[in-house]
Amino acid sequence: MLYSFTNDYSEGCHPNILQRLTESNLTQQPGYGNDAFTQESVAAIRELCQKPEVEVHLVAGGTLANLIVLSAFLKSYESVIAAETGHINNHEAGAIEATGHKIETVATPDGKLRPEDIRPLVNKFPEYHTVKPRIVYISNSTEIGTIYKKQELEELSAFCHQNNLLLYMDGARMAMGLTAKSNDLTLADIARLTDIFYLGATKCGGLIGEAIVIANTSLQKDFKYFIKQRGALMAKGRLFGIQFAELLKNNLMFELGNHANALAQRIAQHFQTLGFTFLTQSETNQIFPILPDALIQELSKKYGFFVWKKMQEGYSAIRIITSWATPEEYVDQFIQDATALSEQAK
Amino acid sequence: MLYSFTNDYSEGCHPNILQRLTESNLTQQPGYGNDAFTQESVAAIRELCQKPEVEVHLVAGGTLANLIVLSAFLKSYESVIAAETGHINNHEAGAIEATGHKIETVATPDGKLRPEDIRPLVNKFPEYHTVKPRIVYISNSTEIGTIYKKQELEELSAFCHQNNLLLYMDGARMAMGLTAKSNDLTLADIARLTDIFYLGATKCGGLIGEAIVIANTSLQKDFKYFIKQRGALMAKGRLFGIQFAELLKNNLMFELGNHANALAQRIAQHFQTLGFTFLTQSETNQIFPILPDALIQELSKKYGFFVWKKMQEGYSAIRIITSWATPEEYVDQFIQDATALSEQAK
Amino acid sequence: MLYSFTNDYSEGCHPNILQRLTESNLTQQPGYGNDAFTQESVAAIRELCQKPEVEVHLVAGGTLANLIVLSAFLKSYESVIAAETGHINNHEAGAIEATGHKIETVATPDGKLRPEDIRPLVNKFPEYHTVKPRIVYISNSTEIGTIYKKQELEELSAFCHQNNLLLYMDGARMAMGLTAKSNDLTLADIARLTDIFYLGATKCGGLIGEAIVIANTSLQKDFKYFIKQRGALMAKGRLFGIQFAELLKNNLMFELGNHANALAQRIAQHFQTLGFTFLTQSETNQIFPILPDALIQELSKKYGFFVWKKMQEGYSAIRIITSWATPEEYVDQFIQDATALSEQAK
Amino acid sequence: MLYSFTNDYSEGCHPNILQRLTESNLTQQPGYGNDAFTQESVAAIRELCQKPEVEVHLVAGGTLANLIVLSAFLKSYESVIAAETGHINNHEAGAIEATGHKIETVATPDGKLRPEDIRPLVNKFPEYHTVKPRIVYISNSTEIGTIYKKQELEELSAFCHQNNLLLYMDGARMAMGLTAKSNDLTLADIARLTDIFYLGATKCGGLIGEAIVIANTSLQKDFKYFIKQRGALMAKGRLFGIQFAELLKNNLMFELGNHANALAQRIAQHFQTLGFTFLTQSETNQIFPILPDALIQELSKKYGFFVWKKMQEGYSAIRIITSWATPEEYVDQFIQDATALSEQAK
Repeated sequence: MLYSFTNDYSEGCHPNILQRLTESNLTQQPGYGNDAFTQESVAAIRELCQKPEVEVHLVAGGTLANLIVLSAFLKSYESVIAAETGHINNHEAGAIEATGHKIETVATPDGKLRPEDIRPLVNKFPEYHTVKPRIVYISNSTEIGTIYKKQELEELSAFCHQNNLLLYMDGARMAMGLTAKSNDLTLADIARLTDIFYLGATKCGGLIGEAIVIANTSLQKDFKYFIKQRGALMAKGRLFGIQFAELLKNNLMFELGNHANALAQRIAQHFQTLGFTFLTQSETNQIFPILPDALIQELSKKYGFFVWKKMQEGYSAIRIITSWATPEEYVDQFIQDATALSEQAK
Repeated sequence: MLYSFTNDYSEGCHPNILQRLTESNLTQQPGYGNDAFTQESVAAIRELCQKPEVEVHLVAGGTLANLIVLSAFLKSYESVIAAETGHINNHEAGAIEATGHKIETVATPDGKLRPEDIRPLVNKFPEYHTVKPRIVYISNSTEIGTIYKKQELEELSAFCHQNNLLLYMDGARMAMGLTAKSNDLTLADIARLTDIFYLGATKCGGLIGEAIVIANTSLQKDFKYFIKQRGALMAKGRLFGIQFAELLKNNLMFELGNHANALAQRIAQHFQTLGFTFLTQSETNQIFPILPDALIQELSKKYGFFVWKKMQEGYSAIRIITSWATPEEYVDQFIQDATALSEQAK
Repeated sequence: MLYSFTNDYSEGCHPNILQRLTESNLTQQPGYGNDAFTQESVAAIRELCQKPEVEVHLVAGGTLANLIVLSAFLKSYESVIAAETGHINNHEAGAIEATGHKIETVATPDGKLRPEDIRPLVNKFPEYHTVKPRIVYISNSTEIGTIYKKQELEELSAFCHQNNLLLYMDGARMAMGLTAKSNDLTLADIARLTDIFYLGATKCGGLIGEAIVIANTSLQKDFKYFIKQRGALMAKGRLFGIQFAELLKNNLMFELGNHANALAQRIAQHFQTLGFTFLTQSETNQIFPILPDALIQELSKKYGFFVWKKMQEGYSAIRIITSWATPEEYVDQFIQDATALSEQAK
Repeated sequence: MLYSFTNDYSEGCHPNILQRLTESNLTQQPGYGNDAFTQESVAAIRELCQKPEVEVHLVAGGTLANLIVLSAFLKSYESVIAAETGHINNHEAGAIEATGHKIETVATPDGKLRPEDIRPLVNKFPEYHTVKPRIVYISNSTEIGTIYKKQELEELSAFCHQNNLLLYMDGARMAMGLTAKSNDLTLADIARLTDIFYLGATKCGGLIGEAIVIANTSLQKDFKYFIKQRGALMAKGRLFGIQFAELLKNNLMFELGNHANALAQRIAQHFQTLGFTFLTQSETNQIFPILPDALIQELSKKYGFFVWKKMQEGYSAIRIITSWATPEEYVDQFIQDATALSEQAK
């Protein structure tokens, strides 16, 4: 195989991280997130959020972040609302339910939630016989590559506050969401408009680590207990601290997100030029072109990707993902091969 | 502070790990534990266990390993038996109970469990009104530095099998347990005598990672679901794979364990020579000397350690821990300082 | 209010139960389901099932039965599949999720599940990232009044066995299901075709109590622990035992079910004659006629019922429920009033 | 067997309850605790508590009450403190842990908790690594027949409030606790000094039912969701309502408690006269005389009781329980037989 576009976690991490790990290796540091590198990360995130009172906790992965946050802030009879495509609903092996909570889902065409999607789930009756929604879970960029615009997030946030709902954003691919072409959100907007979010490193240039940011100060007390109880308080927190300390220096994480987006969009444009359509209108590093099965089969001899969904007879949607580390030359080669194979097929 | 003996996770990791991370950084690898480095680790562990059929899963930390293993193998009405000093009972913020299970504890003088400790908890009555024990949890080395001898583990294992109990060993400090002076166990013995154990990297030279080893083949099916559901299936499993691949090369992990043990025991011998006693009879890298409070105060000006427990008037037990990375010169300096201060105090 | 058709639990219980409670009141009996009345019930159920090896446990209510059964037989990563209208999905305040399990739902027009509804949920991928279905939950009669025919249950049962799925039937209204006009199922069929079901007394002539029947012998071991652990093992099991002992004598429960069905269907026929349509094609004691809002308002002055759903402009579906205790004269009066009011409105 | 002293739930219920059930049987009532009888019970309890703002919920059993209350008011990292003999620790099959919470236990000689028993569990360290106590669970009368004096409860209550702990009293045998000879507490004291308690009917003259009383108004909101979610919101709440409505009329429940106490104490006095000692200093309806095994064997031919614990060679403690329904003549006969058999044995 020449190159895999299967996901954005096939490579290691940005070299700055490895260098810092090496330089600082023998410095003694306190454990459990009290190290200097974690403190450096926290300071960087607070600054990006323009909100010094946010609380930041670094954990190993996205499912872990989601289950800790949701179980921390839901009473047992409270539910979380998510889009049907939401990661917590489909790809976490029941992690949220395993902590005792129902996910109420809404089918939406673009993987995003709007007030009108949520309204019917609020004030269900008969009282006491149904769950009571308390958190709205969204992702940016979403699981199918779309992004929230500032206006949309403002409206959703207002609706949540009016209805006593917390707004939580999964930011596994926040770096891509905030560097998409039409994006008009900043991390400061997100810290202002959500109650909690997480900022992912694993898919955005780090080896490991997601930063849970508790923007709503009323939710901050004792949160570390939840982290410990779910097995997520790491002895060597320095490992996570260094990821974010480096990725947030000079905007590195967002440059890497931009790199990933640009390459995926370059591929998308070419497929469009070739006359193909897409399953979703992605602006980020995941694209879902709908291609003839014969072309897919030929491409799969040289490239790795995921066949996502059978479409009309003879066609399937595939998922192509580029990463912070994807070299331009493989993208160019892929485009060239796809063009040639596509013309042969005519 | 000159040097901290507070714990064995103050430093980073053995340089071989950083080197391998750097060398392999841009190689594309499958995610979620299907990478080549994880496979290399699994092969190394199988060989050390002399049991090719063991299944191995790498997770981030010890509490995570414990909660995944225990919740995977306990039905809801089944309990786990542990020593009162067991890590799951004291230092995991209720992680096991949060998965729905009772820990039944037994007070033992040395942090170890023997058949006679467990027998009274088996076949409690009235039936259906009490929990039913199913797993016995032990640690080696234990939380207070003691170790299991082969004869003890043989007896415990036989008792467990006779009573339909699974035996699970927490090996956060397995490298120290298996290199203590009087140790007569091998990892192959442990794979033969327990049903499940984990082998820790975090405290034994790695940055992160514990290897869950399922020795009892009847327990292996679908285990990865439990890992995913608890948020422990990491996208970049390569990070964990490299820890174990390097630490298990040429016995490195056990050399590092031996190093830590030797330095702590050197300190212990000197305190003994100076006439002090100990809270526990540790053979490993954690020692608990009982010292005059005045001496403790003086030592704490230059060295970090944990004041563990008030003892007789004017005395306290402290906990001194050495690590794979502790330099001999600081140990020598500490001994010299302790000797001098101790003599002054006379 | 003249009479309430709001539900089928507005009255107490069949007088035979009160008489038996009174007669036996001072007889000493063992607790926790070991009493003679419970044994009498178990024997009666085994005979109706024509399957002496079924195990029977009496618990207080339907949600309790559902949560005990589902949490007993699901591993943490396994899910239960239900119709969207399923009681466990809508009206149990997240009881199933609170025990740690995901409900996967399918929208079906009649509240029933067929193999083609379930097939897409089996063998989802990627493996380990999604929940794994293990139990199929159905109700008979369903929450919207429909029933399963023998052929349908045979097919569903066969599909479940082929796919390693357990089939569980909620029988809160089993007495109505098995006495509906077109019914061709017996309790023996249900014991043969399902793995577990429960037979409800609360809505079928009893004061309290649902009988969980474990037809699949491989699931019977230690079940009483689950009952105790969920708080459902009652000291005075005699209360539950007497309900079933009396209701199962001379087919009483099914006569009562038939009574409830007949009266609801009499009302349904008259609404049909009057030219009204229905939300669902119910054959049992719950009917959902779609009526003009003006008529609904008039009727609600004298009768209790539930306004279920807004329909086309000016119309709503209401839910009318009759019970084992509904007197014929109120049904006649209701029909007469509805006819008169309906004609006035023309 | 002539008579069983095995427990206090061998008989049905006080006849007034059966009579009321019969009289009211066909009256239509709303479900789920909104019936008139439940309202009558609530009013009676509020009056006994001299606290009109308490909230009352009726559930089927004691384990159910305990698990609902504790899981409702504990965050996942918070624990409940109980005496080692506490019912939740020993006889609920892990029900509390199944809802995700650790029980921290203290060994006490009399099954009661005092501030000094609890103090060491508050402010454990290191922070975040241990559970955080939040509720103190006590029983009155206790599982071994002892009772709290007003002074003791005042002190415990004050300590709890000072330490941000909720005080919860299990009142399965409250009727016996409050009618013991040396008792100086009233239900109003209990409503004043605890945050939550439950008042049991099952063991005090009812067929079924325990009344959860939430005295601390800050804990009342949305509690009914927890009841529904644990399967404890019964369709025919009238059954529970009638238990308490009748038992609380004219102090009936407490007369029945007094009856049970008096008969057990009469037996206790005779054993004392005969020179026997007791395992615990019970003032209520459960006594634990220590008798020669030969005498125990002879008595067991005619009477039912529980052999509780092997004591010194040749002796065991037995548990004798009398109930609201125990006839005096059997108590007299038992005393006569025990006296005769005891003299023979000399």
